Amino acid sequence: MNVLNVDLGTRSYPIYIGYDLLQDAGLYKRHIISKQVMVVTNTTVAPLYLDRVRRQLDEFHPVTCVLPDGEQYKTLEVMNEIITRLLQARFSRTCCLLALGGGVIGDITGFAAACYQRGVGYIQLPTTLLSQVDSAVGGKTAVNHPLGKNMIGAFHQPLAVISDISVLDTLNDRELHAGLAEVIKYGLIRDHEFFNWLEINITHFLARKRDVLMHAVEHSCRNKAEVVSSDEKESGIRALLNLGHTFAHAIETGLGYQGWLHGEAVATGMLMAADLSSRHGWLAAADTDRIRKVLVESQLPVRLPSSLASKQLLELMSVDKKARDGILHLVLLNGIGNAIVTNEYDPGLLLQTLDSFQP
Amino acid sequence: MNVLNVDLGTRSYPIYIGYDLLQDAGLYKRHIISKQVMVVTNTTVAPLYLDRVRRQLDEFHPVTCVLPDGEQYKTLEVMNEIITRLLQARFSRTCCLLALGGGVIGDITGFAAACYQRGVGYIQLPTTLLSQVDSAVGGKTAVNHPLGKNMIGAFHQPLAVISDISVLDTLNDRELHAGLAEVIKYGLIRDHEFFNWLEINITHFLARKRDVLMHAVEHSCRNKAEVVSSDEKESGIRALLNLGHTFAHAIETGLGYQGWLHGEAVATGMLMAADLSSRHGWLAAADTDRIRKVLVESQLPVRLPSSLASKQLLELMSVDKKARDGILHLVLLNGIGNAIVTNEYDPGLLLQTLDSFQP
Repeated sequence: MNVLNVDLGTRSYPIYIGYDLLQDAGLYKRHIISKQVMVVTNTTVAPLYLDRVRRQLDEFHPVTCVLPDGEQYKTLEVMNEIITRLLQARFSRTCCLLALGGGVIGDITGFAAACYQRGVGYIQLPTTLLSQVDSAVGGKTAVNHPLGKNMIGAFHQPLAVISDISVLDTLNDRELHAGLAEVIKYGLIRDHEFFNWLEINITHFLARKRDVLMHAVEHSCRNKAEVVSSDEKESGIRALLNLGHTFAHAIETGLGYQGWLHGEAVATGMLMAADLSSRHGWLAAADTDRIRKVLVESQLPVRLPSSLASKQLLELMSVDKKARDGILHLVLLNGIGNAIVTNEYDPGLLLQTLDSFQP
Repeated sequence: MNVLNVDLGTRSYPIYIGYDLLQDAGLYKRHIISKQVMVVTNTTVAPLYLDRVRRQLDEFHPVTCVLPDGEQYKTLEVMNEIITRLLQARFSRTCCLLALGGGVIGDITGFAAACYQRGVGYIQLPTTLLSQVDSAVGGKTAVNHPLGKNMIGAFHQPLAVISDISVLDTLNDRELHAGLAEVIKYGLIRDHEFFNWLEINITHFLARKRDVLMHAVEHSCRNKAEVVSSDEKESGIRALLNLGHTFAHAIETGLGYQGWLHGEAVATGMLMAADLSSRHGWLAAADTDRIRKVLVESQLPVRLPSSLASKQLLELMSVDKKARDGILHLVLLNGIGNAIVTNEYDPGLLLQTLDSFQP
């Protein structure tokens, strides 16, 4: 097992990465301070791992809350269901929530923990590649609004992240590929060497070789932890982690949070950011081709869904959280491994990018 | 105009207290950083003060959001309506919300500001005595849940509090009296001298003498600011501000947040806390009588509403935020001006208190 630290003063916490961690009772107990424990999970993950987790927590008689599976359920209404369960169980401020699932479960459970009695503790138990390498780390919690993704939320750091690599064995290929998009992202924004390593190891990764998975998760978490430690509330460099996300959130919102996985939208969005960067001469066209190649090898989409027109996407992008006073800022690439946030792009070229990604 | 400071490091902010402050454009502009401004108010306050506020903000073309009036609308659903309006207006992270109203408007607007895009700025423009002396100061924001008051919320400090004493002229008597309950509270928990002053000046206060109102608001805010500065997130002495509130929240929840004003429930709750303290011998019976006398003179209720049985109240009290691991802690009095948080009360005496307050 490896332990990384997210360094945030009194809000610092460990990320445990290794095999069979879900059945390591000691890890949980290190972070639970009262006897009131609730495991929040979904209908897909519950049959696979809920009993395994519950067995480690026997002495706490944990309450469980099983939600429907899917991004379309990451809503204020479903968050309120978690709150109702907490109140019915008479849980007080010292209680602890365990988020057992992917990004949706982590985000909604984290937000419920942020709001319940103005803030209680929670532990992330990510069960997808995407949540292990990205969403479970860093304390961004949120639910979606019909007009914009992650528009209602809070910065609320977990007490710990327990990333059990073994659970990736049961992950379906599509979810594995979607998570890979966020792994590739770290290479693109700040780690050229990691991107080179990914290009070489992509087939081993897709074959789920254990040492390659472990290295990818650990290296991604290390990158994420470094960025979050230096800019918790995204007033500066943390925004770089959103490479491709302005495009991606517009795609997801336009599709009503159904049909595409978040990582799939991020893949297309990152390639659009690369394409737009190349149109400005900031990124070599050959590098955009390298990025496309890795995404295609990862079986990720590199075109927009057919139902979304360029104009509609542009409209949806304008509510992005990186907008300031109505001016949209984008994360673009100044070479592989070097992302920038800028509003000094040519709107005409942005339209060309949107048009060229139409299927 | 007097200016008090809530000292919280980078989150410090001023409380402006004085006459005709709502038409002081310079005060607003000192704290608004972008051109995106939304005024949130309710149907009672809007006809009285919305135009006055809007005129000072002409250059920002402020968006307005007028909510129905009443504690029963302090819900997650109504909070979501504010979020929808913000998204429709394409407001970004640098926007600013202005909460023009009483405690309900301040709490729900503050919570919307805490959650929108994971946190934007807001300014409190309290228009009731209760919000000027208590809820607008300190950054506690929340909405209610059918199973418990203020159970969904956040600590999110405002950018400034602008308390215009002139607006108290239009406040109806019942609201004025309700606010007085929270003023009396400061005397009871930490300021015996202030309690003595209140006993003497109560008739001047009820006659709305300007210097008496001003002194009461300023002195209350000074007490609140001191407590909040030393314990922002209520890990210690801030809990003392909840004198009477465990009883009060149970009353309000039991009544479905209708019928009684918050300050009225607090009045009865404080007297119940005093009564329970006297039953333990911690507070002289004569002091409980003094407290009752001041509350009666303030035309505040000193009996429970007829529809709530003692057993039901006890049940509702058990979900209080001061419960720890299922054990209810109460704020009680060790003499006037000296509140304590304790779980070392006799449950039998608590039942006696609940029974003796039945109408």
